[in-house]
Amino acid sequence: MGGSIIGERFVAMSFGESHGKCVGIVVDGCPAGLPLNESDIQGLLDLRKPGQSVVTTQRKEEDKVDIISGVFNAHTTGAPICMLIWNKDSDSRPYEIIKNIPRPSHADYPAMVKYGGFADYRGGGRFSGRLTATLVMAGAVAAKLLKQTLGIETVAYTTEIGTVIASNITPANIATRYSNDIRCPDPAAAEKMKDMILQARQDGDSLGGVIECTTTNLPVGLGEPIFASLESDLSKALFSIPAVKAVEFGSGFAGSKRRGSENNDLYTTKNGKVVTKTNNAGGILGGLSNGMPLVIRIGFKPAASIAKTQKTLDISRKSEASLEVPGRHDPCVVPRAPPVVECVVSMVLADHAIMAGLIPSVLR
Amino acid sequence: MGGSIIGERFVAMSFGESHGKCVGIVVDGCPAGLPLNESDIQGLLDLRKPGQSVVTTQRKEEDKVDIISGVFNAHTTGAPICMLIWNKDSDSRPYEIIKNIPRPSHADYPAMVKYGGFADYRGGGRFSGRLTATLVMAGAVAAKLLKQTLGIETVAYTTEIGTVIASNITPANIATRYSNDIRCPDPAAAEKMKDMILQARQDGDSLGGVIECTTTNLPVGLGEPIFASLESDLSKALFSIPAVKAVEFGSGFAGSKRRGSENNDLYTTKNGKVVTKTNNAGGILGGLSNGMPLVIRIGFKPAASIAKTQKTLDISRKSEASLEVPGRHDPCVVPRAPPVVECVVSMVLADHAIMAGLIPSVLR
Amino acid sequence: MGGSIIGERFVAMSFGESHGKCVGIVVDGCPAGLPLNESDIQGLLDLRKPGQSVVTTQRKEEDKVDIISGVFNAHTTGAPICMLIWNKDSDSRPYEIIKNIPRPSHADYPAMVKYGGFADYRGGGRFSGRLTATLVMAGAVAAKLLKQTLGIETVAYTTEIGTVIASNITPANIATRYSNDIRCPDPAAAEKMKDMILQARQDGDSLGGVIECTTTNLPVGLGEPIFASLESDLSKALFSIPAVKAVEFGSGFAGSKRRGSENNDLYTTKNGKVVTKTNNAGGILGGLSNGMPLVIRIGFKPAASIAKTQKTLDISRKSEASLEVPGRHDPCVVPRAPPVVECVVSMVLADHAIMAGLIPSVLR
Amino acid sequence: MGGSIIGERFVAMSFGESHGKCVGIVVDGCPAGLPLNESDIQGLLDLRKPGQSVVTTQRKEEDKVDIISGVFNAHTTGAPICMLIWNKDSDSRPYEIIKNIPRPSHADYPAMVKYGGFADYRGGGRFSGRLTATLVMAGAVAAKLLKQTLGIETVAYTTEIGTVIASNITPANIATRYSNDIRCPDPAAAEKMKDMILQARQDGDSLGGVIECTTTNLPVGLGEPIFASLESDLSKALFSIPAVKAVEFGSGFAGSKRRGSENNDLYTTKNGKVVTKTNNAGGILGGLSNGMPLVIRIGFKPAASIAKTQKTLDISRKSEASLEVPGRHDPCVVPRAPPVVECVVSMVLADHAIMAGLIPSVLR
Repeated sequence: MGGSIIGERFVAMSFGESHGKCVGIVVDGCPAGLPLNESDIQGLLDLRKPGQSVVTTQRKEEDKVDIISGVFNAHTTGAPICMLIWNKDSDSRPYEIIKNIPRPSHADYPAMVKYGGFADYRGGGRFSGRLTATLVMAGAVAAKLLKQTLGIETVAYTTEIGTVIASNITPANIATRYSNDIRCPDPAAAEKMKDMILQARQDGDSLGGVIECTTTNLPVGLGEPIFASLESDLSKALFSIPAVKAVEFGSGFAGSKRRGSENNDLYTTKNGKVVTKTNNAGGILGGLSNGMPLVIRIGFKPAASIAKTQKTLDISRKSEASLEVPGRHDPCVVPRAPPVVECVVSMVLADHAIMAGLIPSVLR
Repeated sequence: MGGSIIGERFVAMSFGESHGKCVGIVVDGCPAGLPLNESDIQGLLDLRKPGQSVVTTQRKEEDKVDIISGVFNAHTTGAPICMLIWNKDSDSRPYEIIKNIPRPSHADYPAMVKYGGFADYRGGGRFSGRLTATLVMAGAVAAKLLKQTLGIETVAYTTEIGTVIASNITPANIATRYSNDIRCPDPAAAEKMKDMILQARQDGDSLGGVIECTTTNLPVGLGEPIFASLESDLSKALFSIPAVKAVEFGSGFAGSKRRGSENNDLYTTKNGKVVTKTNNAGGILGGLSNGMPLVIRIGFKPAASIAKTQKTLDISRKSEASLEVPGRHDPCVVPRAPPVVECVVSMVLADHAIMAGLIPSVLR
Repeated sequence: MGGSIIGERFVAMSFGESHGKCVGIVVDGCPAGLPLNESDIQGLLDLRKPGQSVVTTQRKEEDKVDIISGVFNAHTTGAPICMLIWNKDSDSRPYEIIKNIPRPSHADYPAMVKYGGFADYRGGGRFSGRLTATLVMAGAVAAKLLKQTLGIETVAYTTEIGTVIASNITPANIATRYSNDIRCPDPAAAEKMKDMILQARQDGDSLGGVIECTTTNLPVGLGEPIFASLESDLSKALFSIPAVKAVEFGSGFAGSKRRGSENNDLYTTKNGKVVTKTNNAGGILGGLSNGMPLVIRIGFKPAASIAKTQKTLDISRKSEASLEVPGRHDPCVVPRAPPVVECVVSMVLADHAIMAGLIPSVLR
Repeated sequence: MGGSIIGERFVAMSFGESHGKCVGIVVDGCPAGLPLNESDIQGLLDLRKPGQSVVTTQRKEEDKVDIISGVFNAHTTGAPICMLIWNKDSDSRPYEIIKNIPRPSHADYPAMVKYGGFADYRGGGRFSGRLTATLVMAGAVAAKLLKQTLGIETVAYTTEIGTVIASNITPANIATRYSNDIRCPDPAAAEKMKDMILQARQDGDSLGGVIECTTTNLPVGLGEPIFASLESDLSKALFSIPAVKAVEFGSGFAGSKRRGSENNDLYTTKNGKVVTKTNNAGGILGGLSNGMPLVIRIGFKPAASIAKTQKTLDISRKSEASLEVPGRHDPCVVPRAPPVVECVVSMVLADHAIMAGLIPSVLR
């Protein structure tokens, strides 16, 4: 089906470009009868939008969602839900330069080759981080559906920025993760992260980081062996987020260094429910949810757009060129990414919950 | 399409169980005219099969591939290629115990719940590492196709076992990676890894590790934004391998700690070709191949089957139970995994190369 | 993927409702570099739109296409193309009555049950003939692509209205099929058909009919056995058009009454090209195009909306009810259907031509 | 996904060739817990197999099904079910001649072009009617599933052979449709049909015919608008059967000649259930099942293989050639087709019933 579609039963098709008329997404497979209006989506979009704090780009985008199909009398109808954001504050003039001079570590060069120069390069076009707004719109519907039908909730938060690592992550401070600009549950670490980002910006540079995501109340048995394991489908969706370069579940790479007797999770019961004493599996065994919290860690590379002048090539002439990356950019995309991760994970889980027959086709 | 199918143009459908009659896979979308016979596949199967060395399970499986459709006059016909291995050396009796007593950190418990007790639990059934033999069969076809049409080659090798980390990895020693039991290019590290595995086995325990995979000669522009980015589809396929819990591309999690100016790859030319001076992107930008070598690191958890007695539950009675995991097992699955990783990566790349129109539907 | 998506390489996802904000479609997989603007689509939409003649509904819909993504510098970019029509002349008030009282032979009743009363019933909602405008938009892109790259052309025309059957169908009068209101190549039959429709309308009744569709310049070998035979995918798409109840290829049902020696098409050469002396196969053998013109006949039922009062049920009370179907309707949908059929067939053929590797991913 | 796969939730992938080692099919998505063994499938295969009567080919094929995965303890496990038939009575020598000389109205010529001469042409290879045995295997599972869970039953029977048309078709004689060689409910017509077939064979010729198929106990609301309408998916599957050239639902082409007031089905109640007084819709409105019996008519062309010498071409030399079609053939394939049609329809309905959430993923 190509690359613009994701999901099997809760399906989304993305469209739009960073500096085109709009960015949008069509969601199909949402059961009829879910109460839904723009405000259910706008809240999450607002947490993602730029211009909110000193650590993000100062570009202002209103990012107002418009639902143009699939909702009637304030409920989903079972028909495809098309949601879009009309682009407004885009200034495409600075991007003329990158038509032939690819920005280092952006998609520009391979996109030039792949699309023979026809791709809309303005603002990164189809490869822009702006497209994550479409993931938020689709995922906001999924998140509401999962919450209302199965009580499933997904939270994502910053745990690392550059070399600063959060500690002291508790359910209580996860709940208030959006109260600081970094979206880090550990307020002390958040302060240091903020300083580090501001310093990087001052240096004309950028930073990367890590987001952790946990989901609670997952039923046992989501995931379809072999190729639609929960890890498979979650990673596929997460790697669709620009700048994500690493994904691990549970103890992940750290677990690779352990012995089985250290990493195995032993079964016991808690309040009559089967649980494991540890959760090194991150809630997934054999590609299936095992009823424990889903735990994912996602590594973001440092933003490729930096203010420093970089050496690159003029592809049209295959000659060296120097480039100051045009446009207004985030010195670190991680603080804007938690709502994106929450929404992407929700989309995948909604898809699997419907596949597993756990959500009816009409919510009465 | 559920979980048994992967790919869009080079499509594979898996079937079979660890202790059933066979394990098999049907591949569709391979162009007509590729010379193919059993020996093209058997070589890779032999590198995966158990019983080869002191670090693997002593279980003997002949693992002889049988091509039962899609090949005529020693060439592919364009029709689906069904390949299977008849199961032989399986002893299912020890597995009766796990019908109700799930092995820690195996799929047993979620599979019980998901399939209501109907799943074939013998030897792990559908969740067994034995199913990776089907990935090898499909991927061997893909690898041959990629090599013959585009000169693309994928190599995977062990870089970590437990806490031992290989260094000194060069093209030359990668080429001889299969010359030691660990499949590690660094012979000195391989020796330490072997000792560590033997020690773990002696302790009734197991180990995990890391495999690195590199692909050369990839054309620019493979990958379909947004949801079929090369990272998306590769990670989806890699997480279908049992025991994989982490995947990163290029500088991965390490890159998350860097500044943009350190992590960005600057363009230059080499022999008239556009290249980057570094390859922190691991060959993928914006989800598209950029012509540099593809670099992936894959984290495997320690084998869940250990000889030590573990505490678990009898699910039928929700009472505590002690379990000695039945069957004969690998103290570390990593040394058998490189051919699996090579084949899985080849499947995904063949799929994308066909999607991109780079491989004709008939090879003349 | 549910029912809103069609195609594999040239993929379309439909959204919108008859009386919602808009009807739209997103097309993905169109190669980059195809010159495209709204006028390429508007021409075909205009041939479909209502209010054009005495034989169609007097409802006025401007049906102006808006391309909101995927086109840059007047060429396709390789990104998804979202096209929509904002709804304007919709009067939903008359439809309140059908919320509980289903119109005979419309989708109302099964849709009520399927969507638990949440479906948008206004104007038929998602089941309205208005949705065929989205097929025209997607198909117009496909038709242009096929024409420009392979010279493939598809024409559809009315051959039967009620009991009037056209004869004397020649390439010359097919070329002028849009010159009469019925879109029938046989002008004399067209007059009789027009009278018959006007008589039916005067009687508060409606008529059905048959459309024939032929495609020339098809390359040999389109179609993917077994389940994506050309007949399979064409019929699937054609039965997505409301009111279509029958599809046949070549000699179709008439061929079922013949002997093999009468129905077989014998090979010969013409200008050095392999052709058949007759074309009872309608251009398809074994599900593959054989290089002869594709010939399809499509049967439309009489429009279900008639002015006459009909007996039906009030579903909410399971009591008898009489219904005068609300809204303004076509006494016969067939004259508006030829552009829809042309576009639907073009979509399927574009999909198969791309699958067969006959259209490159960039048009230079 | 190419052409070898059908279905979305109840998915089947076909493999094998007429004269290769086997023909087979893998079914995925069948719920766990369905009692299943070979005899559930063999009964339907036996009704399809050749050599049963004077009106079929005298070729003997045992056609014994072998289930090689997905069944454990005589129940489905939820894993893919691979079923195959090992080919036995195939004599490939006569087929050497068609390597370059295509049989008229067979797939030979387009297959030669499409696969560049690499296709397995023996016995028609992948295009052989023998592949319908795989449809029967998959559909037999679907039919059992539908019967056991929802009481849905599908019956198909011959209504026309050449110019002989059955009348007097009643539920009672439909129930005994397999009691005559023609599988025609009208015994008097069956006699005439038999004579007509024997005469055609004696003349070195062949005949076509029509099969009608009805399904009872369908729940209301199966079908997914727009592109997975029930008509869309049923026709797609039915046109995968070799020799099918026409499909109509309910009043079909005959309805195209009627007025709306004649063709509309008016609602009423029967035993408290909503029904229609007539069933011109054939049980489908707006692409959704409406609770009335599904009624489909399927037109088969006369068998392309006839004993008479036919003029054709030697493609390798583009010169005229005369051909006596090699092999042993049916003078009319229709009498062997009813079980195939029943099974194909069952596959589609099972897929839709699962999609609609009407069949649980475990049958307890």
